[in-house]
Amino acid sequence: MKDEITIIGTPISPYVRKVLAILDMKGIPFRCIPQIPFTGDEAFTKISPLRRIPVLQIGDFTVPDSSVIAQYLEEKFPEVNVYPQDPEARARARWFEEYADDHIGRNVVYNLFFQRRVRPAVLKQETDEALVDKAINHELPKVLGYLEVEVPAEGFICGDFCVADIALGAMMRNAFWSDWTLDGAQWPGVAAYLGRVYAHPAMARLNTLAESMLGTSPKEHQAMVDAHFAA
Amino acid sequence: MKDEITIIGTPISPYVRKVLAILDMKGIPFRCIPQIPFTGDEAFTKISPLRRIPVLQIGDFTVPDSSVIAQYLEEKFPEVNVYPQDPEARARARWFEEYADDHIGRNVVYNLFFQRRVRPAVLKQETDEALVDKAINHELPKVLGYLEVEVPAEGFICGDFCVADIALGAMMRNAFWSDWTLDGAQWPGVAAYLGRVYAHPAMARLNTLAESMLGTSPKEHQAMVDAHFAA
Repeated sequence: MKDEITIIGTPISPYVRKVLAILDMKGIPFRCIPQIPFTGDEAFTKISPLRRIPVLQIGDFTVPDSSVIAQYLEEKFPEVNVYPQDPEARARARWFEEYADDHIGRNVVYNLFFQRRVRPAVLKQETDEALVDKAINHELPKVLGYLEVEVPAEGFICGDFCVADIALGAMMRNAFWSDWTLDGAQWPGVAAYLGRVYAHPAMARLNTLAESMLGTSPKEHQAMVDAHFAA
Repeated sequence: MKDEITIIGTPISPYVRKVLAILDMKGIPFRCIPQIPFTGDEAFTKISPLRRIPVLQIGDFTVPDSSVIAQYLEEKFPEVNVYPQDPEARARARWFEEYADDHIGRNVVYNLFFQRRVRPAVLKQETDEALVDKAINHELPKVLGYLEVEVPAEGFICGDFCVADIALGAMMRNAFWSDWTLDGAQWPGVAAYLGRVYAHPAMARLNTLAESMLGTSPKEHQAMVDAHFAA
């Protein structure tokens, strides 16, 4: 179909799940190609110069970067909103989205998930324990200390469930998949908040999919993704 | 004044200049406090958890991150647009903004400007020549190769002059301030494009200000900034 939406990127990535959760909430049909980041041929480099995921493709139009895609989907399909309507709340949501994707991402995706899951299992390399230690014992405690102040006692971080919750929840999930545990005694607000975020149907469905893919061969991923989204 | 706009951050930073250029184009009065990044007290950490710049302050509302601020200003002051109106062009502009701020930024701000200008002159530390070499001989040639394909023969990268040009131009300017030269024979399209970007009055005015501040004591910066924006 000319205007079929394709998301290129594996749902194991929190950046890809962010975009897939938005499409799910907006009720927009799409196809997902579970590309692994930093791989791919010259055609992939052409649409994603840094070989990152996700990439959005609609007809001839392609654009990379989860935040750019999220904002584009919000503007193209405004019937269901994933960004707050009030300008100050929207700016605050974009800040948490950026904080999750960039700062938490550097620690969770690169220093935890990549080191503990990807290097030993996929690349047959040793985990760099210094990076893991830095993430777990230095950076994540600061992140959690900040979020503990920011998350509300009930509900979501900018009012209604929105892109900020999707980004924070998706990113922290990859920490849980890296043999990391959240100390609920030290950060009870964050623990309860993430529980509420993961109970959202869009998040729950994607976590189920990604967890079923973890530890399986990439060769099986297209069929798993297709079966999940056809269901 | 209750709704006076304050931008916290030194104009020597390309991220700060991006936001100041947008305010200039929109004709919005503002105050600038030339804060140095990664410094400041607990009050600054409260409004900028990563101690980054710029931070926007309007009355009681504060938000960090140049892209979040840029988008907020676009929505609050829509009379003059700095993002394209067509959704696909707008997504493309946001992609270049992100590419400049994140990927080029890592190389230019951290591996070039910080190493060559800040470490020896401000911190009295040695330049890490390996990082400089990586930026100049490995990463920036890839960036320039990509941009050479993307920039048009005339005009700007997404049609009218927009946030993408501001972000790319501001970022590359800090490379020029780090004893780096652009090989115009190898990348004639980028060289001509940056020339057009720097000829824009908003960019020219800010470059003049920042260049006058380089090499001067931070103690003088508030007076220099005030004098510049009062003129």
